[in-house]
Amino acid sequence: MLGKDYANQDCTLARSLEVVGERWTLLILRDAFYGVQRFSDFAAHLDIPRAVLSDRLRGLVDDGLLCRRPDSDHPRREIYALTGTGRALWPALHALMRWGDHFESRPARTFVHAACDARLDERGICPACGATPDPEDVTAVAGQDPTRTDRISAALYPRKRLLEPLVAQPG
Amino acid sequence: MLGKDYANQDCTLARSLEVVGERWTLLILRDAFYGVQRFSDFAAHLDIPRAVLSDRLRGLVDDGLLCRRPDSDHPRREIYALTGTGRALWPALHALMRWGDHFESRPARTFVHAACDARLDERGICPACGATPDPEDVTAVAGQDPTRTDRISAALYPRKRLLEPLVAQPG
Repeated sequence: MLGKDYANQDCTLARSLEVVGERWTLLILRDAFYGVQRFSDFAAHLDIPRAVLSDRLRGLVDDGLLCRRPDSDHPRREIYALTGTGRALWPALHALMRWGDHFESRPARTFVHAACDARLDERGICPACGATPDPEDVTAVAGQDPTRTDRISAALYPRKRLLEPLVAQPG
Repeated sequence: MLGKDYANQDCTLARSLEVVGERWTLLILRDAFYGVQRFSDFAAHLDIPRAVLSDRLRGLVDDGLLCRRPDSDHPRREIYALTGTGRALWPALHALMRWGDHFESRPARTFVHAACDARLDERGICPACGATPDPEDVTAVAGQDPTRTDRISAALYPRKRLLEPLVAQPG
């Protein structure tokens, strides 16, 4: 496999891709926006080897997108939460998800401004009020029954505000 | 290398990444927004093996992001141009580039609304007039001397409207 760096590409896009361009990394960050915080919950939702998940989470902590905090429910365990740099990825992540609609007849999940219940456009702007809400003011709405049957997919099925920690049955 | 698909991830982000998440693909699309159209120009600007470039361009054509057209300057050659689906990636691409500013003290290139000469915010909104211009109404402005010395980097150094075909000295 080629390295993850883009040597000699003096461009902020290349730098962005060095940080989030590796396989699975953006899906881990998507889950973090959905409120997934525990290693075991990421592992249940993403079909990746635990060693890869562990490597990606460590990289995201090293690059300052996630931070580790003590897990108040499980002594000696830690949770992962988005930092300010990580949260700042929301416009790009949302735009990529909206662009993916070009390939899906019906998106699995849409994003609405919590205050207006209106679907954000591809720039993340609320068509009802004109605001561009931060992720904590955005609600994720499932558009179809989940095809996955894991406990995290079930916990993410009801409407849910982004960044609110996920409450799921332990696996 | 792992496959490029994300099986069992029913999410438009996973679908987006299947189309643009492979290594180099977003940098090729970035160059297409800059007006790069010829195989030899992509090859001069990106330090990738020609076989990889060829594979990525074919994939982008197959997925409907680029289309091939006859090269009016070179009989029997073709150029690559963004389709509507490809152009629709601009908000995501721009947001990723803006987010990369978190890691660079001075971005190599900024993007301004051509009509207002004001730098777009991370949502692609012009702070002067409030519009969210399409890429053809955006001008790329180099922020620092290019570290690369190839002919395409030189041709991209002056202010340049996005999507206008690049005029570069043949290599």
